[in-house]
Amino acid sequence: MPTIDPARLLSDLHALRAIGAYKTGVHRPTYGTDDVRSRHWFAERLAQAGLTATIDGIGNAIGHDPSPGRKLLLGSHLETQNRAGWLDGAMGAIFALEVARVLGRGIDVAGWADEEGHYGSFLGSRSYAGLLPEAEIDSCKSVDDGTPLRTALQTAGFAGAPRLQADPARYIGYLEAHIEQGATLEDAGEKIGIVTAIVGSHRFRIVFEGQQNHAGTTRMAARRDAGVALIKLAAAIEDRFPQVVGPRTVWTTGRITLDPGAPSIVPGGAEMLFQFRDTDPALLLRLETELEALVEQANQGPCRVLIAYRGRSVPRQMDAGFQAALERAAETHAPGAHQRMPSGAGHDAQILAEAMPSGMLFVPSIGGISHHFTEDTSEADIVLGCQVLTDAAAEILAAL
Amino acid sequence: MPTIDPARLLSDLHALRAIGAYKTGVHRPTYGTDDVRSRHWFAERLAQAGLTATIDGIGNAIGHDPSPGRKLLLGSHLETQNRAGWLDGAMGAIFALEVARVLGRGIDVAGWADEEGHYGSFLGSRSYAGLLPEAEIDSCKSVDDGTPLRTALQTAGFAGAPRLQADPARYIGYLEAHIEQGATLEDAGEKIGIVTAIVGSHRFRIVFEGQQNHAGTTRMAARRDAGVALIKLAAAIEDRFPQVVGPRTVWTTGRITLDPGAPSIVPGGAEMLFQFRDTDPALLLRLETELEALVEQANQGPCRVLIAYRGRSVPRQMDAGFQAALERAAETHAPGAHQRMPSGAGHDAQILAEAMPSGMLFVPSIGGISHHFTEDTSEADIVLGCQVLTDAAAEILAAL
Repeated sequence: MPTIDPARLLSDLHALRAIGAYKTGVHRPTYGTDDVRSRHWFAERLAQAGLTATIDGIGNAIGHDPSPGRKLLLGSHLETQNRAGWLDGAMGAIFALEVARVLGRGIDVAGWADEEGHYGSFLGSRSYAGLLPEAEIDSCKSVDDGTPLRTALQTAGFAGAPRLQADPARYIGYLEAHIEQGATLEDAGEKIGIVTAIVGSHRFRIVFEGQQNHAGTTRMAARRDAGVALIKLAAAIEDRFPQVVGPRTVWTTGRITLDPGAPSIVPGGAEMLFQFRDTDPALLLRLETELEALVEQANQGPCRVLIAYRGRSVPRQMDAGFQAALERAAETHAPGAHQRMPSGAGHDAQILAEAMPSGMLFVPSIGGISHHFTEDTSEADIVLGCQVLTDAAAEILAAL
Repeated sequence: MPTIDPARLLSDLHALRAIGAYKTGVHRPTYGTDDVRSRHWFAERLAQAGLTATIDGIGNAIGHDPSPGRKLLLGSHLETQNRAGWLDGAMGAIFALEVARVLGRGIDVAGWADEEGHYGSFLGSRSYAGLLPEAEIDSCKSVDDGTPLRTALQTAGFAGAPRLQADPARYIGYLEAHIEQGATLEDAGEKIGIVTAIVGSHRFRIVFEGQQNHAGTTRMAARRDAGVALIKLAAAIEDRFPQVVGPRTVWTTGRITLDPGAPSIVPGGAEMLFQFRDTDPALLLRLETELEALVEQANQGPCRVLIAYRGRSVPRQMDAGFQAALERAAETHAPGAHQRMPSGAGHDAQILAEAMPSGMLFVPSIGGISHHFTEDTSEADIVLGCQVLTDAAAEILAAL
């Protein structure tokens, strides 16, 4: 089997880390100066690897293997969360570059744009998969400062270029490596996770309408306290969900706001952002029914409770053949130290899975930490992960 | 009994309302331009009523009756909450002026500064009661924009003047009229509330320390979700408090914050502002013990829960003799349409009660609304309230 060059791999990772370095992590939001620099840097590396490199109209940095025959697409995203880690995305992109260099042919490489959602939802991978309409580009804005996406693309210098789109006939499928962003592998003392499916998420805004009042003069019986209504529904969810979820379901209330939020005022309004995730689409629908029943019950109280859907993403199964290939490669290089596991986080692979067979591997995250500048993975685990990906890609290409 | 002049009373109330008018209410925060104008306007009216008028170093506009003998002190505050009502404070100050005019002698009148807490806690009445140290004035800042109180007093033109302080030997006691700021009187179809006591409040900041994590990749069993810990404690309070409170206890969670408050991040920190109020000091202490027990219990979970005391105010009993005088006057002018009731809100009378016997009467608030520009009371109820206050003051003075 072809062997990777660990020094070259780590050197490239550290070179990319230097673009937008922040403490021990990186601050490289999509279409910012450092993000644009990183995309040009990556495209140069792709060209040096013998690929035809392009930065397209949405900012994807893509290297096409000019040789004939069907290709395996490898990649991940180049931008980071704000003031976050150096490996989330970057590692998978550099792995893809290294695999292309080691295998010599059969590999296309993608450095996707905006998986982290600074302007939209998986803009780069959706664009390449043919799932991003122009009208959506017109309407996207920076979540940080409201800059229109069109303006950001113009400033970045990407606006003139056409958007590349995958030719389904060209591809055997897509592989992506990523840090786990959880502690499952570390806790188990394992080195490789083979992703079985990427969870779907259902996301809600729940709004409570009561009546604002003086917290000293309004007797309890007369109150329509939106905050109390929220507390009771949130507690009911925490009581009920453990009885109905699956073993890997996660659910989260990430934000609570009381209006006006003053210590001596009975809240007249309240809002919570709630979400749950699982790999089983039927279970997701069942949980939504449970949530609606709890909201219905909450509406029996003195406040009006409204549920709004912020979004639903569908769980995506990873290709069984790719899972098997990744597992064989893992068993070769880390015998007994790998497991099949779902991905609780979203990844570009869930988008590509709509267009072609897809697979993912995880390497351990130290302490399970991600989206923070302390995010890290040991060099040994990084090198091992890249070798496993290389083996699996080689096996898949050889089977053609 | 002396009779008030309803036209003069209402005309003064409307003249004061015009200073800082906002929609149908008033925006007159302490030491702002309109507040300063209103204090000069009020001092002029006091002088016209034959009182020796002073605006002192904390902004209190005070009229001293120059005649010999002990006095009854009447008043309320002149400033308003931001964009709030026209009667909260203003009504009691104008009532005091009218009583002084009608009775001719024996009445001192106070227009207190900053009962509404724009810069501190009951600054004006505490200053007059001898309970406001200079060092506290040094440290107070505007809750709106951080302006130091010293700067605000300088800008207002009050900084040079000495602060007046009550001579205990001068006063029989203090009477204050105020809008109810609740709907108890309106719901009962009654016209006058005779305040039995002003509630004490115990105020807390409860802080939850967990661990921030990715909402997709962190399994439920591994989470230390500060938001869930908060929800559970808040729900436990709502379950437990109804079993242990008194009939008029009120308790409120006015603010909840999750940190970082993002939809896809397990909150690593959370905070709630909680308070309860009652007129019974023993009950307040018992409720604090209950709260501490619930916090102790919450600390058995995966998060650390800390309770910080934001403040405690002691319940203040109103003078029994003053209550009886107010009740007799109420029965004369509104037979059967009055009740004794606690005040759930704080008032300057709770401060003066530390220095002298004090009493309060309430007039109905339409819809129970206050701290909002729609706050209102019918003219008939205003006139009635002022006549009842006049009768009670006359009776108390006559008993000297």
